[in-house]
Amino acid sequence: MRKILAITGGVGGAKLALGLAKILPPDEVLFVVNTGDDFEHMGLNICPDIDTLTYTLADLNNTELGWGRRGETWNCLDSLEALGGESWFRLGDHDLALHLHRTARLRAGATLTEVTREITTKLGITHTMVPMCDQPVRTIVHAEQGPMAFQHYFVRDRCAPAVTGFHFEGIDAAKLSPVLSAFLAECTGVVICPSNPFVSVDAVLAVPGMRAALSRLPVIAVSPIVGGKAIKGPTAKMMQELKVPATAAQVAAHYGDLLDGFVLDEQDAALHGQLRPATVVTRTIMVTLKDRIGLAQSCLDFFEGLPRR
Amino acid sequence: MRKILAITGGVGGAKLALGLAKILPPDEVLFVVNTGDDFEHMGLNICPDIDTLTYTLADLNNTELGWGRRGETWNCLDSLEALGGESWFRLGDHDLALHLHRTARLRAGATLTEVTREITTKLGITHTMVPMCDQPVRTIVHAEQGPMAFQHYFVRDRCAPAVTGFHFEGIDAAKLSPVLSAFLAECTGVVICPSNPFVSVDAVLAVPGMRAALSRLPVIAVSPIVGGKAIKGPTAKMMQELKVPATAAQVAAHYGDLLDGFVLDEQDAALHGQLRPATVVTRTIMVTLKDRIGLAQSCLDFFEGLPRR
Repeated sequence: MRKILAITGGVGGAKLALGLAKILPPDEVLFVVNTGDDFEHMGLNICPDIDTLTYTLADLNNTELGWGRRGETWNCLDSLEALGGESWFRLGDHDLALHLHRTARLRAGATLTEVTREITTKLGITHTMVPMCDQPVRTIVHAEQGPMAFQHYFVRDRCAPAVTGFHFEGIDAAKLSPVLSAFLAECTGVVICPSNPFVSVDAVLAVPGMRAALSRLPVIAVSPIVGGKAIKGPTAKMMQELKVPATAAQVAAHYGDLLDGFVLDEQDAALHGQLRPATVVTRTIMVTLKDRIGLAQSCLDFFEGLPRR
Repeated sequence: MRKILAITGGVGGAKLALGLAKILPPDEVLFVVNTGDDFEHMGLNICPDIDTLTYTLADLNNTELGWGRRGETWNCLDSLEALGGESWFRLGDHDLALHLHRTARLRAGATLTEVTREITTKLGITHTMVPMCDQPVRTIVHAEQGPMAFQHYFVRDRCAPAVTGFHFEGIDAAKLSPVLSAFLAECTGVVICPSNPFVSVDAVLAVPGMRAALSRLPVIAVSPIVGGKAIKGPTAKMMQELKVPATAAQVAAHYGDLLDGFVLDEQDAALHGQLRPATVVTRTIMVTLKDRIGLAQSCLDFFEGLPRR
């Protein structure tokens, strides 16, 4: 039986995750989600990437905004602004419920793995997603003006600061989520979704034990860079600031020996056969559900053609 | 110049407080509010009595519900219920903003006195209200089934448990709010609003230093019991369970030597002149704004006729 591990960050990764969930039954795939973007905001424990995948798999995601929950209202935020409160993080009324409930459960002693399972089950999601770990890890963005919390960089400052590097605070004390550890023992293949390599995927890879576990498994990645541009988010801008080429080839190089296969978009077909890992060329831009399922199927098919480890 | 201190709990007290605020300019009155009912809920610091007085003085109170904020929506709560979260405490979307903002400010190191001033000012309230203290005090209700947090008794269990007594957790470490201490030095008279004597007013009186300060001042109370019934809330029920008569006379006896004057409702006119403190009879049931102002004026007039301390 296939046991596919999909590593994902936010919106881009969640699109492919949805495709995988449409093909694979719940016992054949596990989604492991970056929690380096998590933060505490006004007393609430917020997990942006888990939330994005939750809303996506529950078919509750807001496709107009590209983030958050469908049919959202903003009454709390309006009143918060009237009080002079912090309103840079756009908390919708419905979305707030998830943060409040998670916060309450964590305070009652549940782990993030447990709370995530409870919430996704309640929302009718039959597939399993887990945080990369249950311990707090916080992605710190090193920028010109000094180190900053990821959400301050990403949401408050809209990715404007030029980055010079990243680190994952708390990563040394992080332990792979127990559900993830158990899955890795039977895993047959790993898909790195087209999420930001530096902040989303690297955070997951940095959890002690993760790289060693993956080194024994076939790993493929889908390039988040297509034709020299990021489909979504600051990946290409970051690469320019880090003074590396903003190319799919550079993403493959970034993952290095970890990769057995690399999925290129049609726009980057010229790179086919030119990279260290095996490559496949397909449409990676996911506009429709059919695109998501198509790319997921390409990934699954790709494993078949890879040389055995 | 008059310097009137008004001691208040929730809805009943807030009605008289509004009347006082309509008569007295901001420098002639200070509202000190019970915080024994405060609690932490899903990561939020909630101060029900401060919130009630805030919404009342800001003319934002929900008169249909009798609590909370006008024009409220419940989208977050609906989603919270769908997640199987705690929904016994009815958090409105607009109301949530106040809790979130307070929580953020307290976590940033502000005192409850400071946060309360910031919020009330932002909402256009020119009068000053202060928490009885900045330290956490929690009213514990002793009930048949054991001790319980006040909001569990009051909201979750709708005052159903029979009470045997109360205590105020943390009261020994409580210090009078600094603004309150300063005001007490110049105070010319104290009005105990018609709030629950056992939980709302006693909590304020239990803050170390409060009773000693009041013993030097003319103090009048407005009976929260009229014709043997509580105008609002569980006061009469509590008195029955505590095996004392649910009468205005008993409320006066409860406050004991603290009182110089006691304001009786017309329905209890037979008690006039029959109690230890001086009494005055007036309409104490506040339905309209005119009722609130009328009762406030009666209280202020009452001070004039009291023997000097």
